[in-house]
Order: sequence, then C-alpha cells, then structure tokens
Amino acid sequence: MEYGKIYVTGLGPGAADQMTVQARNVLEKCPVIIGYTVYIDLIRADYPDKEFLSTPMRKEADRCRMAFEEAAKGRDVAMVCSGDAGIYGMAGLICEIGKDYPEIGIEIIPGITAASGGAAVLGAPLMHDFAVISLSDLLTPWEKIAQRLRATAEADFVICLYNPSSRKRADYLAKACGMILESRAPETVCGIVRNIGRDGERCEILTLEKLKDTQVDMFTTVFIGNSNTMELNGRMVTPRGYKDV
Amino acid sequence: MEYGKIYVTGLGPGAADQMTVQARNVLEKCPVIIGYTVYIDLIRADYPDKEFLSTPMRKEADRCRMAFEEAAKGRDVAMVCSGDAGIYGMAGLICEIGKDYPEIGIEIIPGITAASGGAAVLGAPLMHDFAVISLSDLLTPWEKIAQRLRATAEADFVICLYNPSSRKRADYLAKACGMILESRAPETVCGIVRNIGRDGERCEILTLEKLKDTQVDMFTTVFIGNSNTMELNGRMVTPRGYKDV
Repeated sequence: MEYGKIYVTGLGPGAADQMTVQARNVLEKCPVIIGYTVYIDLIRADYPDKEFLSTPMRKEADRCRMAFEEAAKGRDVAMVCSGDAGIYGMAGLICEIGKDYPEIGIEIIPGITAASGGAAVLGAPLMHDFAVISLSDLLTPWEKIAQRLRATAEADFVICLYNPSSRKRADYLAKACGMILESRAPETVCGIVRNIGRDGERCEILTLEKLKDTQVDMFTTVFIGNSNTMELNGRMVTPRGYKDV
Repeated sequence: MEYGKIYVTGLGPGAADQMTVQARNVLEKCPVIIGYTVYIDLIRADYPDKEFLSTPMRKEADRCRMAFEEAAKGRDVAMVCSGDAGIYGMAGLICEIGKDYPEIGIEIIPGITAASGGAAVLGAPLMHDFAVISLSDLLTPWEKIAQRLRATAEADFVICLYNPSSRKRADYLAKACGMILESRAPETVCGIVRNIGRDGERCEILTLEKLKDTQVDMFTTVFIGNSNTMELNGRMVTPRGYKDV
C-alpha cells in the first residue's frame, strides 16, 4: 500500500477567495481535512464530500498525530490552519512530529498571513522593514516578548502584533504600547484590523497613544507604524525608504 | 463616464497557482495589466486578450501614474507585483500618488510574500517572532539597516532578509552575517531559497558561519534562525515556543 501525504495548508485570513489556487487544489484533492474546529467550520460547507476531523484548541499535537495516522492508511490529508501554515501555524509541529513517521511525505502550502491581509485592509503599512511579534505568553516568557518589543521599537521597525489580547491577557496590548512609547512618539500612526477577510471586517487608524487605551480582542491584528508612517486619505501608509523617492 | 479602479495585486512568489483566487479573479476582470516587465512576462501567456503596459525597473512612479491615467479613462487596472503588493511592493506608492487622483478607487489584493513562500520550501522557520529586513540601501541608509540587524539578532528574532545581494552590493550579506554573529552563535541554523515557486527553485540549509561566506543573488531569500531553530530531516524548523510544548 502506498502512504498518503500530508499537505499543511494555510487558508488565508478567512474569505475563500483569499486562499491560493494551490490551497484550493489541495482541498479538492485530499479526502481528509483536519483542523481546529473554527477553521473547519469556515470551509465545511464548500466541501460536502470530505471527511472532516478535528481536536479542541490546545490539542495540536494530537491533531498532528491524527494526520499522520490517516496518511499511514494511504489517504492524502489536508491539515488546515487560518492564515499561513508556516507563521505561528501547524507546519512546525507537523515537521517535529514527522520525526516519528519518516515514511510519510510532508508538503507546506503557504497562505496569506494576517500581516499581509491586514496591511491590505489598512493601506500599505508594510512598505519597509517590519517585525511580527505574538503577545501570547503561553509558550514564550513575557520578558522575551518585552525585549523584542523594545528592540524593534528602538530600531524603528514597523511592528505587527499577533494575538494582542485574550481574556486572561486583557492588558497586554496596553503594556506593549507602553514599552514601545519608551522610544517612539505618542503620535506614531497605528492601525488595527478585526476579522480580516471575514464578516464584520473593520479597521481603524489611530495614534500609538490612543492605541494604548484601546481594547482589542483575539481576532484583531495590530500595526504600529515606523517614524515615517502616515495617514493618507484614510489609509495607513509607510514610505518605502528614508531618502527621497 | 465612470472611473475605473486600480487593484494593486500581489502575484505571489512565481508559480501561477501560488496566486490567490482573488488575485486571479482580478486579472480576469481587468482589461489592463500594468507591472515591471519581469512580472508581466510571468503572466502574459495566460492572458492573451489583455493590454499589458510596463515601465523599466526604477520608473515605479511613472508606472503608478500610468495606472491612474488608465483608470481615469474608465478602465479597471491590475497593477501587479511579485510576492505581496503590500510588502516592499507597489501598494505604498499607489496610495501616495493617489493623493493626486482622489476620484480613483484603490484596492490592495495581498499575495504570498517571499518570507511565507520561502519558509514553506525550507520547512517551518517562521513558527516564532520574526523580522523582515531588506538589505537594499538604495532608499535606506546602511546605518539604519545595520541597527536593525543588530537589534533583531540580540533579541533572538528569526530574521528574513530580502534583497540580500546585487551586483553593486555583493558583500552585503557577508557584512550582515558579521553583525548578526556579534550576538548569535556561528552554528545558528540558516536557510536560503532561490527562485521560490519558479523554475530552478532550490534551497539549502547551512550554519550562520557558512552563510557568511556564501554568495547569493537577488532572486534569493535568506532565513536566519533563532537560538532554538534546528535542522530536522532536512528541514529548517523553529519550535513554536521557548517552553515545553
């Protein structure tokens, strides 16, 4: 019997048309689609003939082993994530657990991550060097996150924050903004985007000072401009250089 | 007469199937496609009925005005870039020049950027916080680039380098690696990917010390792992946290 293959597939921010053609082809080809319930629900209606498998949120390793077990039965598996499978997604854990299943092939299918998707909604905030930082301290010590916030703020990066808030971390965005304000102007242009590419998508452009006092949820991506970022006709725009264009 | 609209569209790394469904729909809908010659040539054969317009490499502002002039005639325009239109792409300049054409609508269609596309080829290097830095000093002082390299190396980011080399900047990657080596181990796991998603795609995983002595070209994207990044079955993998999973 031939083994199946695992395609770790990023679905993009949400809307079906923000998926790549390659990702759509994978979903059409694979008889089994595995993912976290919320993402599975986004696509289930479009693929009525598939077998959908899932595990709860913090059971990522179980979900990966489920994918390898299905592939070992000879079935191609799409392991889906929102955004890009390779950016805080499932690609890493699949590669790690793949050590135990050397006979199973793995292919990573990239997707539009929230930094790209959110930037497109706001305008063009990522025209210059940027850093992507997750504020979740579930697996990373807060001191490490704080060091990264301060380092990139001082070096004038555009900063994109993933997981800016949760019920247990309601004050993390305010703390992060406070650290960034140590080296950056209060009027620095910032942007927030909620529900990128999904129903209820909305965005707002605001100053860093105001962002500090803004409550966001876990479906929000936050952008902090560099010293040159500006608001232009309701869009957040970072010029592509520091010299005249 | 109704004005046309400008769709600033990221084509992804190269292969037609790494385009999003949305980008493909835009190309099908717009009668005019504008872009840098190299990207136009990637898609010309697929769209025989379109009008293709182009300008040479450093004439980006002219190319943008060309798009607004066409839209002013009532035609929808796809302004195409490789990768993501919003990451070192044309989205920013279109928004800036759009000040002079307030009557023309602009929509940004995100695409797979080289960081996402290259990561998928290498394995899963971007599972934790990362910084994207361009080594091109055409519009940015080298001192600013150097500050960013040092800051992100010290804060243990995964670092993704765009434009790592050109004929005039053959030694820039070596210089950048030298700066990163001031705070990072010589055996730090790194990866390079050339021609992502195109003919002749190839990748290599190597140490930071070896990367310093490696010659790359302008079609290469470079990944420098964080202190936890490892090589696993020929893949570059960054664990998703600093605590046990």
